[in-house]
Amino acid sequence: MSRPCALVALTVISLLGSFSSPSPAAVTPTPSPTPRLYSPETLAELKKLQQAALASDYAYRQVAHLSNNIGPRLSGSAQAEKAVQYVADQLKSIGLAVQLEKVMVPHWVRGEETAALVQFPGQAENTTQKIVLTALGDSVATPKEGLTAEVVVARDFDELKSLGKERVQGKIVVFNHAFDKQMAAQGFGNEAYAEAVVYRGDSPAAASRLGAVAVLIRSVGGAAYRLPHTGMTHYADDAPKIPAAALAEEDADLIAALAPQGPVQMHLVLTPQQLPDVPSHNVIGDLKGTEHPEQVVIVSGHLDSWDLGTGAIDDGAGVAVAMQTANLVRQLNLHPRRTIRIIAWMNEENGLKGGKTYAEEHSAEIGNHFAAIETDLGADHPVGIYSAGKPDLKAFLEPVAKILQTAGAGLLLFRNEAGADIDPLLKLGVPNFSPIQDSRTYFSYHHTAADTLDKIVPRELAENAAINAVLAYALANLEQPLPR
Amino acid sequence: MSRPCALVALTVISLLGSFSSPSPAAVTPTPSPTPRLYSPETLAELKKLQQAALASDYAYRQVAHLSNNIGPRLSGSAQAEKAVQYVADQLKSIGLAVQLEKVMVPHWVRGEETAALVQFPGQAENTTQKIVLTALGDSVATPKEGLTAEVVVARDFDELKSLGKERVQGKIVVFNHAFDKQMAAQGFGNEAYAEAVVYRGDSPAAASRLGAVAVLIRSVGGAAYRLPHTGMTHYADDAPKIPAAALAEEDADLIAALAPQGPVQMHLVLTPQQLPDVPSHNVIGDLKGTEHPEQVVIVSGHLDSWDLGTGAIDDGAGVAVAMQTANLVRQLNLHPRRTIRIIAWMNEENGLKGGKTYAEEHSAEIGNHFAAIETDLGADHPVGIYSAGKPDLKAFLEPVAKILQTAGAGLLLFRNEAGADIDPLLKLGVPNFSPIQDSRTYFSYHHTAADTLDKIVPRELAENAAINAVLAYALANLEQPLPR
Repeated sequence: MSRPCALVALTVISLLGSFSSPSPAAVTPTPSPTPRLYSPETLAELKKLQQAALASDYAYRQVAHLSNNIGPRLSGSAQAEKAVQYVADQLKSIGLAVQLEKVMVPHWVRGEETAALVQFPGQAENTTQKIVLTALGDSVATPKEGLTAEVVVARDFDELKSLGKERVQGKIVVFNHAFDKQMAAQGFGNEAYAEAVVYRGDSPAAASRLGAVAVLIRSVGGAAYRLPHTGMTHYADDAPKIPAAALAEEDADLIAALAPQGPVQMHLVLTPQQLPDVPSHNVIGDLKGTEHPEQVVIVSGHLDSWDLGTGAIDDGAGVAVAMQTANLVRQLNLHPRRTIRIIAWMNEENGLKGGKTYAEEHSAEIGNHFAAIETDLGADHPVGIYSAGKPDLKAFLEPVAKILQTAGAGLLLFRNEAGADIDPLLKLGVPNFSPIQDSRTYFSYHHTAADTLDKIVPRELAENAAINAVLAYALANLEQPLPR
Repeated sequence: MSRPCALVALTVISLLGSFSSPSPAAVTPTPSPTPRLYSPETLAELKKLQQAALASDYAYRQVAHLSNNIGPRLSGSAQAEKAVQYVADQLKSIGLAVQLEKVMVPHWVRGEETAALVQFPGQAENTTQKIVLTALGDSVATPKEGLTAEVVVARDFDELKSLGKERVQGKIVVFNHAFDKQMAAQGFGNEAYAEAVVYRGDSPAAASRLGAVAVLIRSVGGAAYRLPHTGMTHYADDAPKIPAAALAEEDADLIAALAPQGPVQMHLVLTPQQLPDVPSHNVIGDLKGTEHPEQVVIVSGHLDSWDLGTGAIDDGAGVAVAMQTANLVRQLNLHPRRTIRIIAWMNEENGLKGGKTYAEEHSAEIGNHFAAIETDLGADHPVGIYSAGKPDLKAFLEPVAKILQTAGAGLLLFRNEAGADIDPLLKLGVPNFSPIQDSRTYFSYHHTAADTLDKIVPRELAENAAINAVLAYALANLEQPLPR
């Protein structure tokens, strides 16, 4: 072992101590030398990449174009196709070998969505109260002229069950299950989301089994600005499909306040359409590796977005920071040992067809998929890297974390999943990674009309780009195999 | 001077020192004794009122009914009339002598309001970008099928002027003048509002004089949740009336980002209607004074609201805390020396007809209008009392402030205005008062669809009710005339 190599090993050992030990104890000497992870040249290049990423506005310009000039990019839309072309052209222009890999995607189109309380206690004659809501993805439509029915409110599945068929039959069920804003504000946005999102997915079946004619959920998200949050729902085979929408938080509150006072009737119009599946594409751009071109490190975000906002934080940002990884490696004239593969996934939001199709079609080369990174939790300040796969993955990132820590992003955490599009690869054994992002406000805008460019702080986007670039290049140059 | 009287005087002198002196110096002895302001009995009753107000949910139940059961209450609407009846009935039920005083009000009705960018740089073929906006009060309509025109953006009136007729003629003018959110977040919401709101009022004339076909302003308000803020605009006699609307902040940003890149065309549909004026009413409830029944202390809020939200913070809350003043005085079986007059004003939002008509019709009795209080800056934590009128009004409130200070609301500040509806009385010499409220988030919801009940914290509403009750009862029992 050369002298620099021993130094690196010592650094690794030292970091292992400082990152994994809960006690403030000094470094514990280990009996055997640790194999080298990164060459001194690689470590120097990582620092350059970090600095260049933090100083560049390339990622911001990319997400600005996707959000402002192209706009919402729901699968099957003209905007989604325009975005495919745009990203492909951009990746070509920085010198990548670009492929469009075909993916058949659902083509769900939002229609009219209006609702009003037409009967409620205390109302002025001939008046209604407007209800703000938005159809959930995959929802079927009401009759064109709408439907009118009494509303029945339940806090959760248990309460609905206790009401029974007798009280639910023919009604519009409102699930008033609150997203835990306090938990989100304390940094556990994902956990708050996971707890509440089951109502978005499972409510139609639960309500339909008891004879409901439609189902409305309280929006799964924080912040109360009369802003409904869409997102996918699904239907069960054993119950008729009924229209499903998300209420703005205020409207869920209103209905929940009025219903105990007397009968509340709602008129509901939702006219989404489920059109036949259409072909779309994952955009794939390769920056060939010098030593192991067959081995790939995926860096990715998803190109499709919901249709209400302009898909800036979900997930124009993720695509932009992935593009920036390739852009910087080219700009700095670096040559990764393995291939860095930029992927802009299609159809994360309502079908995950991009991620699933890729994993299926590349299953024969899965052993050559060294690692996959996805950024899909917005663009706020990142503090480190999540690993998903074998628990000891973390140790391989500690020299990387040491570099990222200089910009406050040196935390290494383990998670069961690191990105919806790369999860099919994880299940095939490919180590997955993603930035650990500040998610305190992410779910305030998530899947709403307010997912727009202004929600991105350019400096924080650059911090995410820095993590992507440093991590991807490090993995592409790692001198050891990753556990899988 | 009796002993208790001397004690009160001493307290007054001490408070004068502690409230008005910027130095931490000790009390300065004054050569002459100060006349007694409040009897010991009154001071004891004020404490009881404060405690009762803080413990009661009456005000919250009232604003809940106005917001949830009646809903938006724009002048001329069935809901506004229902609210008039409701408040009159409630005031009668607590034993007040109630009068409905007729006011002719404008009857402006919002119509369809949709907009989209139909041409912009980089757009996908056959796509548009949705623009979120809301018509300003009093706005005229576009043709029913809408109008399509190029957009021209100006930061302010000067920039528009510099563009000149040549670049503005036939265009839709967008004033992208930002509300100062930081100023608002620091507690200067009113100041930030005053600075930006001139664009809401004066933009139509400024744009129309240069030949614009419509004018859009960036919403006057904080928070960016794709939520436009309505409010009154006005037209000048020397320029044609053109349709006027407020853009959500994000949409102003979008247009401002795209316009420098190339031509941006918008299709705009606004179909509000200005119907003939209709009769409505100020609701007036008197709790007769025992000693000077002819002298009145007005306690008030405005009953009308904008039509987008349910008028909880603007200004159901103000009406509710005024009602609570009478309710508590009756409940505690107190007997004010002067008459306490509860007024729920009509038409503050788009015409101020209620306040103006009252001042006109009661001008003969103006000398008997001892004071007027209005609460119209939401329902957040109050820290004291604004006085408007003679600068030395403050001194008369210092024993009151001492009591309110036990709940953190002992600040006394001078202001030029204390409420839009009572301002016509101020101009006739009647001292005006209002609670000093935390306005940091008020302008995030103000005049939007998100002005709903959930924005009111019951405890903070009760704190405002406590100020109203204590201040009104103190003024009704003040042993000296107020300077005017």
